[in-house]
Amino acid sequence: MGRTSDARSKILNAARSLIELRGYSALGVAEICKTAGVPKGSFYHFFESKEALALTVLDEQWVVQRRDWERALGGDQVPLLRLRQLFEETAAAQRAGQATCGSVSGCMFGNLTLELSNQTAPIRERLQEIFDAQVGMVEAVISVALERGDVTVTDTRDAARSVVAQLEGQVLFAKLYNSTAQLDALWLNCLALLGARAPQPDVVAV
Amino acid sequence: MGRTSDARSKILNAARSLIELRGYSALGVAEICKTAGVPKGSFYHFFESKEALALTVLDEQWVVQRRDWERALGGDQVPLLRLRQLFEETAAAQRAGQATCGSVSGCMFGNLTLELSNQTAPIRERLQEIFDAQVGMVEAVISVALERGDVTVTDTRDAARSVVAQLEGQVLFAKLYNSTAQLDALWLNCLALLGARAPQPDVVAV
Repeated sequence: MGRTSDARSKILNAARSLIELRGYSALGVAEICKTAGVPKGSFYHFFESKEALALTVLDEQWVVQRRDWERALGGDQVPLLRLRQLFEETAAAQRAGQATCGSVSGCMFGNLTLELSNQTAPIRERLQEIFDAQVGMVEAVISVALERGDVTVTDTRDAARSVVAQLEGQVLFAKLYNSTAQLDALWLNCLALLGARAPQPDVVAV
Repeated sequence: MGRTSDARSKILNAARSLIELRGYSALGVAEICKTAGVPKGSFYHFFESKEALALTVLDEQWVVQRRDWERALGGDQVPLLRLRQLFEETAAAQRAGQATCGSVSGCMFGNLTLELSNQTAPIRERLQEIFDAQVGMVEAVISVALERGDVTVTDTRDAARSVVAQLEGQVLFAKLYNSTAQLDALWLNCLALLGARAPQPDVVAV
């Protein structure tokens, strides 16, 4: 990797860490460059603005998280157990973050939604796309569960949105109380929201 | 009301509006004073710091909202219908805010939780107290519903936290999509989370 892309990567890593710790508005380009250890002139070589940087941070974060979600939700377990897998991995990621930086940093997409979504249209649109994709991935699993008769929802899209809303709400509490124990409720709440019963773990998926 | 308290009140009103629109970190004392139409010197006469102002804004917001919650949850309807009343009033308040400022501003407590709770201890503690109180008020209603056999929860505190988490998650989506339609799901989701069926509206409370 040459020096140029190295500087870009350093800026992105610094911005992601700082946004997770302190949000977007509190940051300035000078502080991001100082944390990244790159001259301020480099910043505008790679990014037109702080907003452009934030959009790139969101995109890169979603590339990583989407892969995790696809792995969790695309396994060969029965559909409801794939959802449980997603919740367990979410809790594990929040615990790992807490161990690293001392506090639960929550979901970057949720954080930026509440901080910024009614302020900048491009960031709002990108966050809408990301949450649309998350809801779509959960909906696909719910649809299979519905075909199997494992759940009793009437609208798979609404149900998926409610599951993701519950996830975001519990992650909000996990951040507020700096406690990942809040996330233990996700699985049973998901079953309740979907009108399902806990499936037997040894059931083989169709 | 004398001039002194008038200036304090103007600062608080300006701060509340600005925080709802743009969050906390993006604001400076100078901008708050300019919006309030008071000289900057006045600010430090009333508030030690921007953080002290934010704590006062939170307290005043909670005084108003707690009264709304007490009215909705303390009526003489059956317990589950009191919860429905809370969701309907929440949706109405978000619709009114949207009509006034053009966008759904969401829940100030949720917004500041995700923006700030892992940054400043006093604000985190105040937000914890407010959410503890909200969960406690919902739990009290769930406990009565449980005594009546209307719900089937095993832990009323956990159940109350899940209902408030669902509320915060759906309000997050309402803000993201600038659509209060997101909040229509709250009532049926609450029934699902509590293992309840929709009560008959004409049932008289005990």
